[in-house]
Amino acid sequence: MHRSARLPASFEPNPLSRMLSERRAAHLPVVDLTVSNPTACGFAYPEAEIRAALADRAVLGYAPDPLGSRRAREAVAAFHGRDLRADDLLLTASTSEGYALLFKLLGDPGDEVLVPSPSYPLFDWLARLEGMQARAVPSYFHERWHLDLGALDAAASGRTRAVVVVNPNNPTGHFLSRTEWAGLTELCARRGLALLVDEVFADYSLEAPPDALPTALEDTDPPCPLFLLSGLSKIAALPQVKLGWLAVRGPGAADHLEALAFLADQYLSVSASAQAAAPALLALAPGIQVQVRTRLRANLAALDRALADRPHLSRLPVEGGWSVLLRRPALDADDACALRLLRETGVLTHPGSFFDLPGDGHLVLSLLTPEAIFSDGLERALPQL
Amino acid sequence: MHRSARLPASFEPNPLSRMLSERRAAHLPVVDLTVSNPTACGFAYPEAEIRAALADRAVLGYAPDPLGSRRAREAVAAFHGRDLRADDLLLTASTSEGYALLFKLLGDPGDEVLVPSPSYPLFDWLARLEGMQARAVPSYFHERWHLDLGALDAAASGRTRAVVVVNPNNPTGHFLSRTEWAGLTELCARRGLALLVDEVFADYSLEAPPDALPTALEDTDPPCPLFLLSGLSKIAALPQVKLGWLAVRGPGAADHLEALAFLADQYLSVSASAQAAAPALLALAPGIQVQVRTRLRANLAALDRALADRPHLSRLPVEGGWSVLLRRPALDADDACALRLLRETGVLTHPGSFFDLPGDGHLVLSLLTPEAIFSDGLERALPQL
Repeated sequence: MHRSARLPASFEPNPLSRMLSERRAAHLPVVDLTVSNPTACGFAYPEAEIRAALADRAVLGYAPDPLGSRRAREAVAAFHGRDLRADDLLLTASTSEGYALLFKLLGDPGDEVLVPSPSYPLFDWLARLEGMQARAVPSYFHERWHLDLGALDAAASGRTRAVVVVNPNNPTGHFLSRTEWAGLTELCARRGLALLVDEVFADYSLEAPPDALPTALEDTDPPCPLFLLSGLSKIAALPQVKLGWLAVRGPGAADHLEALAFLADQYLSVSASAQAAAPALLALAPGIQVQVRTRLRANLAALDRALADRPHLSRLPVEGGWSVLLRRPALDADDACALRLLRETGVLTHPGSFFDLPGDGHLVLSLLTPEAIFSDGLERALPQL
Repeated sequence: MHRSARLPASFEPNPLSRMLSERRAAHLPVVDLTVSNPTACGFAYPEAEIRAALADRAVLGYAPDPLGSRRAREAVAAFHGRDLRADDLLLTASTSEGYALLFKLLGDPGDEVLVPSPSYPLFDWLARLEGMQARAVPSYFHERWHLDLGALDAAASGRTRAVVVVNPNNPTGHFLSRTEWAGLTELCARRGLALLVDEVFADYSLEAPPDALPTALEDTDPPCPLFLLSGLSKIAALPQVKLGWLAVRGPGAADHLEALAFLADQYLSVSASAQAAAPALLALAPGIQVQVRTRLRANLAALDRALADRPHLSRLPVEGGWSVLLRRPALDADDACALRLLRETGVLTHPGSFFDLPGDGHLVLSLLTPEAIFSDGLERALPQL
C-alpha cells in the first residue's frame, strides 16, 4: 500500500523518549520538569462546577451551527473584550483544528507559511499534514527576543500565504512589542499575507516589558487579515474539554469567516457539551489562572535562588507563558545534556534543539511543575550542568 | 489575499436552500421530509443518564492518549463484538475526522479515492480539503443496488489509494452482498488499495436480503487493509456528543494504527467527556435504536399505504439506513420538482441529484421524520407528482 509523504519517515521515538520509557518500565524515578498537562499539576479545580457545566441541559440537543453556538461565542467575545463580537468568532475542538482549518483556507498543497523560530514543533506537522510547509525564520535574542522582520520579508515567496506567531511565544515567552506588531502587520499587508496569532498563553504575563503587546485584539483595524487562536486549554487550564476558537479581523474578515464556516461544517467537531459549558468554564478561568500564575512565579523565584550561587548558569527573561529557558555552558550538545541528566539524575528536561533553539546551551523547563518537584529537580540537575 | 483552490468557487446557497430560507424568513410553513438530526425528532432519550455520563469524574483529567482512552475503546470493541479488540481502534471526534485522518494516511495531494455513487456529497469535500479527489463510480440499480466492480477496477489509476463504501449506503440503503464483499476486497488487494467502510447506519437494517453483509467486521482477515468507520452519531442517535471511531484490520494493521495515532496526536480532538461517557452511552444505544427502527418502519409502511393507490409512483427497497428513494415520472428535473413541491405544498424533499442519482425521477425522503409530519408531507406532496 502507498505511504503518504505527509507522514514522518519513521515513528521511532527519539533517544530521550526511549530512555524515558525505559526508566518508567524499570520503575526508576523520573523528576519531570517538562509537564504541560495542567490537570496533573495539583491545581484546585472547582470540580462540581466543571462537571455540572459539562452536563448542562443543552447537551441533549444538537444544533449544528458551523460557527458554534451563539451563546458560547458571546461568552468568548465577552471574555476577550476589546470590541470582539460573537460574529467575529468560530469555535473549534482545539487550536490544532483551528490551524488545520486556517491552512486549508489559506493555502494549496505546495504553499508555505513562515514561522519565527524557536517555536513549538507542532507547526511543522500541522502544515505538512495539509500538504504545506512551515518555514522557520530565526528570531534572535539580544537582551530580549526580537522578530527578524527583514528575514521574514526576505523569506516570503510567491508560495507564502501567512506568518504564524505565538504571543507570547512558546517556549521563549516572547511577547511581540508594539513596534514589532506594527512592522509585522505592515509586512503582511504589503506582501498579501495573512497573520495568524496564537494567544493561548496571553493570560500568563510574567516579566513582560512595558511595550509588550498584551493581545493582538488591541488592534481593532489591522491592515492585513488577522486570525487569532485561543482556547480553554490554557485560558482555563482545561485541555480535556476540547474547546478552542478563531477570531477573525482585518480586510475580508466576513468572507474569511464564511469560508471558515464552510470548512468547519464538513467536520462539526465541537461537542455540544463543550459549547454548553463554555460560559460557565470561562467564568471559572480567572480563579484557575491565579493559581497557575502563582505557580509560575514561585518556580521562577526558586530557579533564581538556585542560580544565584551558580554564576556559570543563567536563565532568559520570561515575558510570559509556562516555560523558562535555562542557559548553560555548551560543553555538550543539548540533546546529549538532556539524556545525561535523565540517566544520571532522573530529571527530565527538554533540550533547546527540540524547539529549534540555535546552537547549544539551552534547556527548557516547565514552570507549571508542582513546586516541590521543580525544586527537587533543580537540586538534582543544576550541579550536573 | 490568496484563495485556496480547496474551497468551492462560491458559497451561494443552492436554489432549494435559498427558497427554504425565504420561506422560513416569511414564516411560511415547512413540512420537512429531510430531517437528519435525531435529537430533534421526538425520540425519548434517557436524559438524566446522558447528562450524568457526560459529567463522569473522568472529565476532570486529561489523559492525551492519541488512540483514545482504553476504557472507551474497550466499550466500543465490546459493542461491535466480532473479535474486535480495543487495540484495533482509534477514537475520533466524528466520522468526518476519521475520513480526514485516513485520507492523510493514505494519500498525497493529487491522489484520489473511488466512491461508488449515488452517495452522500460530503466525500467530495472531505477528499478535496486534503488536496485529493473523490472520483464517483456509478453503481447500478436492477431490482436492488449493485456495485459495479468492473467499473471500479477500470477507474483505479496509479493515483488511486482507496475505495470508500458505505454499508448500508446513504441514501440508497444498499447493503453490500457477501459476493460484492468478496469481489471488493479482492479488487482492493490486487490493486494495492485500502478499503474504507462507513457503517454508521449498520444497526438500521430494514429490508436487507439474506446475503447482505451486516458488517465488514464479519471478515476477520480481509486480504486488503480495512478501515471501518462508525460512531455514536447514528449508533446511539447522539450526534452532539462527538465521538466516532476507526477500526483497522487486514495487512499492515498495526503499522496503520501507529501512523493514525501519530496523525491523531497532532489534533487530539476527542473530549474527555465524550470518552468518559462512551461506555454508558453505548449501553443506552439499543434502547434508542429500537425507537428509531420503529419510526423508520412506521414511515415506510405509511409510504407504502400512500403509494398503493398511486401506480405511477413507487419506492426503491430500503435495505437499511434512514432514507427512502421515491420514484416518480420524470416530467421535470428532480431539482425543479423539489423546488416546485416546496413552493406549492411547503414540503421539503431532496432531489436525487443531490446524491448523484443518475437521471431524473427520484426524490429522497428521510424516514427519521416524526410520523405525523411524514404522513402530512406525503398527503401534500404525492398528489403533485
